[in-house]
Amino acid sequence: MGKIADMYYTVDPWLVSEKGFEKSRSEVSESIFSLANEYMGVRGYFEEGYSGETLIGSYFNGVYENSPQENHVKYKGIVARSHFMVNAVDWLYTRIWCGDTSLDLANAEIDNFERHLDLRTGILIRSFHWKPNKETKVKIIFKRMLNMEEVTQGYQNISIETLEGDADLTILMGIDFNTIHKGEGRNFWKEQEKNSNHFSASMIAETSTTKQKVYAGFSIVASKSLDTRIVERDKFIGFEFNVKLKEKEVFEVERRVTMIVNKTGIDERNLSQIGSQALKLQLSSNVVCERNRIHWKNVWDQEDIQIEGDTRNQQGIRYCIFQLHQTYYGQNPNHNIGAKGLTGEAYGGLAFWDTETCCLPFYLLTNLSAAKNLLEFRYYTLPQAKERAKQLDCEGACYPIATLNGHEACDLWQHASLQFQPSTGVAYGIWHYVNVSHDKEFLYSHGIEILIEVSRFLVSRGAWSTNGEFGFFGVMGPDEFQMMVNHNAYTNYMAKRTLEYTLEVLEEMKTIDRISFQSTLAKCGLIEKEYQNWQECAEKMVVLKDENGLIEQHDGFFKLPELDIHSIPVDEFPLYDHWSYDRIYRNNMIKQPDVLMFLFLYNQSFGIAEKQINYEFYEPKTIHESSLSPSIHSILASELGKEQEAYQFFEFATRMDLDNFNRNTREGLHTTSIASAWMNIVYGFGGVRTDGKELILSPTIPEKWKSYTFKITYQKRLIQVKVDRMTVKISLLKGDILKAQIYNELTEITNIALVIDR
Amino acid sequence: MGKIADMYYTVDPWLVSEKGFEKSRSEVSESIFSLANEYMGVRGYFEEGYSGETLIGSYFNGVYENSPQENHVKYKGIVARSHFMVNAVDWLYTRIWCGDTSLDLANAEIDNFERHLDLRTGILIRSFHWKPNKETKVKIIFKRMLNMEEVTQGYQNISIETLEGDADLTILMGIDFNTIHKGEGRNFWKEQEKNSNHFSASMIAETSTTKQKVYAGFSIVASKSLDTRIVERDKFIGFEFNVKLKEKEVFEVERRVTMIVNKTGIDERNLSQIGSQALKLQLSSNVVCERNRIHWKNVWDQEDIQIEGDTRNQQGIRYCIFQLHQTYYGQNPNHNIGAKGLTGEAYGGLAFWDTETCCLPFYLLTNLSAAKNLLEFRYYTLPQAKERAKQLDCEGACYPIATLNGHEACDLWQHASLQFQPSTGVAYGIWHYVNVSHDKEFLYSHGIEILIEVSRFLVSRGAWSTNGEFGFFGVMGPDEFQMMVNHNAYTNYMAKRTLEYTLEVLEEMKTIDRISFQSTLAKCGLIEKEYQNWQECAEKMVVLKDENGLIEQHDGFFKLPELDIHSIPVDEFPLYDHWSYDRIYRNNMIKQPDVLMFLFLYNQSFGIAEKQINYEFYEPKTIHESSLSPSIHSILASELGKEQEAYQFFEFATRMDLDNFNRNTREGLHTTSIASAWMNIVYGFGGVRTDGKELILSPTIPEKWKSYTFKITYQKRLIQVKVDRMTVKISLLKGDILKAQIYNELTEITNIALVIDR
Repeated sequence: MGKIADMYYTVDPWLVSEKGFEKSRSEVSESIFSLANEYMGVRGYFEEGYSGETLIGSYFNGVYENSPQENHVKYKGIVARSHFMVNAVDWLYTRIWCGDTSLDLANAEIDNFERHLDLRTGILIRSFHWKPNKETKVKIIFKRMLNMEEVTQGYQNISIETLEGDADLTILMGIDFNTIHKGEGRNFWKEQEKNSNHFSASMIAETSTTKQKVYAGFSIVASKSLDTRIVERDKFIGFEFNVKLKEKEVFEVERRVTMIVNKTGIDERNLSQIGSQALKLQLSSNVVCERNRIHWKNVWDQEDIQIEGDTRNQQGIRYCIFQLHQTYYGQNPNHNIGAKGLTGEAYGGLAFWDTETCCLPFYLLTNLSAAKNLLEFRYYTLPQAKERAKQLDCEGACYPIATLNGHEACDLWQHASLQFQPSTGVAYGIWHYVNVSHDKEFLYSHGIEILIEVSRFLVSRGAWSTNGEFGFFGVMGPDEFQMMVNHNAYTNYMAKRTLEYTLEVLEEMKTIDRISFQSTLAKCGLIEKEYQNWQECAEKMVVLKDENGLIEQHDGFFKLPELDIHSIPVDEFPLYDHWSYDRIYRNNMIKQPDVLMFLFLYNQSFGIAEKQINYEFYEPKTIHESSLSPSIHSILASELGKEQEAYQFFEFATRMDLDNFNRNTREGLHTTSIASAWMNIVYGFGGVRTDGKELILSPTIPEKWKSYTFKITYQKRLIQVKVDRMTVKISLLKGDILKAQIYNELTEITNIALVIDR
Repeated sequence: MGKIADMYYTVDPWLVSEKGFEKSRSEVSESIFSLANEYMGVRGYFEEGYSGETLIGSYFNGVYENSPQENHVKYKGIVARSHFMVNAVDWLYTRIWCGDTSLDLANAEIDNFERHLDLRTGILIRSFHWKPNKETKVKIIFKRMLNMEEVTQGYQNISIETLEGDADLTILMGIDFNTIHKGEGRNFWKEQEKNSNHFSASMIAETSTTKQKVYAGFSIVASKSLDTRIVERDKFIGFEFNVKLKEKEVFEVERRVTMIVNKTGIDERNLSQIGSQALKLQLSSNVVCERNRIHWKNVWDQEDIQIEGDTRNQQGIRYCIFQLHQTYYGQNPNHNIGAKGLTGEAYGGLAFWDTETCCLPFYLLTNLSAAKNLLEFRYYTLPQAKERAKQLDCEGACYPIATLNGHEACDLWQHASLQFQPSTGVAYGIWHYVNVSHDKEFLYSHGIEILIEVSRFLVSRGAWSTNGEFGFFGVMGPDEFQMMVNHNAYTNYMAKRTLEYTLEVLEEMKTIDRISFQSTLAKCGLIEKEYQNWQECAEKMVVLKDENGLIEQHDGFFKLPELDIHSIPVDEFPLYDHWSYDRIYRNNMIKQPDVLMFLFLYNQSFGIAEKQINYEFYEPKTIHESSLSPSIHSILASELGKEQEAYQFFEFATRMDLDNFNRNTREGLHTTSIASAWMNIVYGFGGVRTDGKELILSPTIPEKWKSYTFKITYQKRLIQVKVDRMTVKISLLKGDILKAQIYNELTEITNIALVIDR
């Protein structure tokens, strides 16, 4: 299963650059050069039109459509209709003609093509020289940017300079709702309203079945006075104008775009008015550019990881942090993080259980309010989770495998009805968040309600076996290669911890905050008799284990046929595409960590010997057909002193997309797995653990690195850790003295930098 | 789960009669009064048109369409498109007007409605008095019949008598390919060709995607000279004529219909010619009626079961035998037996594994050539089964869960990719057939080839567990409430027996018929090394069993959560409609016999104590949500001396459809489960066993019966068994002396009736 880096972009600590244009890589670059500001995202497509392979993708967080196809499997509890983040408006739509020749990079004669994404500003610049005819050569620069503060705003700047000859240009700039959602091969928008005057135009369009509305309006400011003509087509509005340039003349035009989403239909009468008002107030790109620079400076001050001696990973991890931050930084608790962020249509733009297990730690330690908002998303979608539990003939709340709107979007029952890591993941997320933040206010209000409903679900879905043990029958754990098993260790263990934590919080509230306690019980209709039963379920929960502490992934796993994963020919991967579906499920091959996953999540609850024996048993059986798998293995390998193995697993982590390791970056970035890359460094090499009473730090350093530095925020302290080949330097940049476990010793972190020999 | 008889039809030993017309039962009666002759079937719908609920269903064995919907689950090995027996031509199409009033039993003023199906002739007669207006009353009799010998022929006779007043009638008789396939809500036929002259008309139509053609032509002969007008519409051709009747006058018209199927497209140019030629030669209904009577007399001479003292079951079992014979009597090895026969669209008209396990015994003991043809069907579809094995990444041949054309039609992977009882069932069928017939010719030519390919499949699908045992992982046995289990006892045991039998036959052929042996090896590309491995697989095949002989249905079954099936409210059945899909699969509830099934099939291989302990463990866990379940339980209960229980399980068997026990007879008859009713009497009360070296007979008699008599053909002998309350009388009606195990004693059956005290 050797993965091969496709090294294409220039290596630079702060820039992602492409020099020269290769058509075959164009869709990959569209993903790589995606911009987003949580509210919306846009792929790095060529806005001037491109007749080659392209995905003109533009997405708004939480704007979705229902699947046109109904599920033909119609049993109860099986999702009848899926939903997905729908491709929205092409707000960068531009066409440029020089004389009769239109600009299309698939055919045009061009050179000096360059594209740069600056991770310090979030500005994307693309420039090239175009020879539309024998006499003329122009230099064109496209610049685009999303406002990171006023998130409804986007900018496009076009500069055209005549290098040789005169140019008689026609330019069309518009907003286009005719975008094709590639996954479905069709458009999902209906035009509602159009408005225009000489220099601004707007449209409101609505999704087909979900009736969500998007206002998109734009104005243009040019370096020359323009005589504009309005162009209207179905779902399109724009301006066309002519520009005559003499040799060496430069023409510049700036487009300011305001896009306002109305998901709920409330106050929709004013949408047009609100939109045009906002459009009028939109500042120039220069001002916003400066504000974005400050925004990003603050981000990097807090979140940057510096690596000395390894520029490739330096660029890689910064690109990861940049993309993760772009996708989500906590502006709205109704947003979540899609598997591909806002960069493509794969996985339907849906949020999976990785949110709490893989993305949350990044936010917990760099952006606590964003971490909280991720959990608030689950609070606001608790009603949907309760509805889902009912569909499954259960009580309480069952969180979806995949969702945009809180409802289950996964229409494969073998996942949606058998996998419960989203629910225990949410409970884990609350526990983890409270452990790091001590935010009891959230816990006693929203957190406990979720915990109670998840516990209810677990107890109603679990069952007592005839020999008096409690556990889950007919489930699938995180390892999706073992379907319909009993006593999956992950499911059982996570459920046990969820129940125990819920009881612990209830006990704590009863003592500390009796009013909240009583009102919670009342709100949830919870009586003592009900939650006392949870105690017994937790106590009798089966986690199968041999005398050496080797945990059995599920009842019967040890007796399964052995499959030597190295005997599988490379061209049979991914197995889902090459193996008969059922064949995947009847041997001891593992898709992604299952036992090892909870050994990581509740790391402090297991001794090193137990981790070792389980790692050594399960790691060789794992094919990592999930992009979050290698990082978990790398983190545990680091802990077990397997430094080489740890680095091997890390190798693809930061540059998964930059080097297109999985050969599918064109579909969108692996957004949630780039979160794991951050964890891989901070938890893996940094040896950070946040699941104990105190913060834990046991850094190591990969052989190839000279040093690395990361910062984390922990219980209101900002701490910087610099690890070089000889020492670890821990500095408290903000906040009070903190006691932490450093290399197993309880140590105070103070203003005076702590320097420890490694 | 009390089932309640809906007693509606008159009880009579040879007739099924309806007196008076109840609209709400009309669709049930359509199923009950279905006619068939294996080649085709037609529901008992009102041919004159009916504006109430109706399914105008007419089917040809093996004429099918592909499902219009593609499966949206697209993994390898999952069936992309299902197929189903398609509703074909309404060849009885008739419309009758009296003046301006059209005859429509949904609205007409009628009385004296009667309908009779005579099981001795297969003729269906319906008559009633109709008052189309105040002055007029007519008596109408519809008669229909299918030719049981020249199976392409159908007949309709209409008689109209004016009881009061004159009648000015207009009659339209046609053939109509506009039938709606109810399951898909659309028609699947394209008109190809129409022909007509004054008294005959024909059409050829073709199915949409499978391009199968049906020629349907008819001629009419009337008691008055008629002035006919041709009526042509899309996919319809017919004659309209007027008939003026004076009071007490009788008009009769006979329609003779020839329907010829061309499934393959070969020689299709002549279809029209062949059809019209056959139509010209079609005999009158009187002649055919007499021939049918003889046909049915021969059937009853061979197959009748007489019950004294229980007219309801007497009628019931005769109805079962009648319908089973109508559906299949072995005229063509390309035919098989759909779950609903040729009487409706439910289950897509597909043949399931019941063919070999439930239907085959009936034919084995009453119609051996039909039994052979059922197995030939599997031989002719061996290429499709081999293709299916490949799709599943396996070798050899995997027979489909459900099929019409040999290809897998079940698009639910959890059945089609996990259940292998069709394959082991075919192997069992061959073994059973050879045991009863000693037909080594079939065995050494076609049988062995199937056995080899099935063995190959089994060995490639099975696997060795890490502790050195062989078995099947990730399967579903006949009990469809336990999904993706390991070492399902049924699957493992049946596979073990299949492998052993294949090896035994190979060994036998090597000794007895070396030429066939060599040519078989060559044809199958089988070498000794390959089949020697099968020996080890068979030897190491796991069948989990405790020290008392209690077999564990699968690894882990004994630890499953206990579910008291009596605690399930009646209104939650069928569970598939009321329970969350996954909830069905995580407790020790059983849908239908699994362990008990193979204890029945290989009955002589298990001791009585072993049967007893397993029966007592599994029976209380079984909800019988399969119509073949009660009969198997009844047979075993009889063997275990549980006479009352045996009778309770038998209670619904013969009258499942006549009394509409499952409330879904309107969808079609439970054809394959009526085969179980026959088994229930012959194997159950009759104590017949055909899986030993000798024929076994240990009759008992239900308390309520005075006597019962059945006949079986066994190794070319025709044997009659009459059981009354005191004695069993066994007579050899044809053939040589036979040694049989009668009540555990080896006894000779000779021409002199053997009378044994019970």
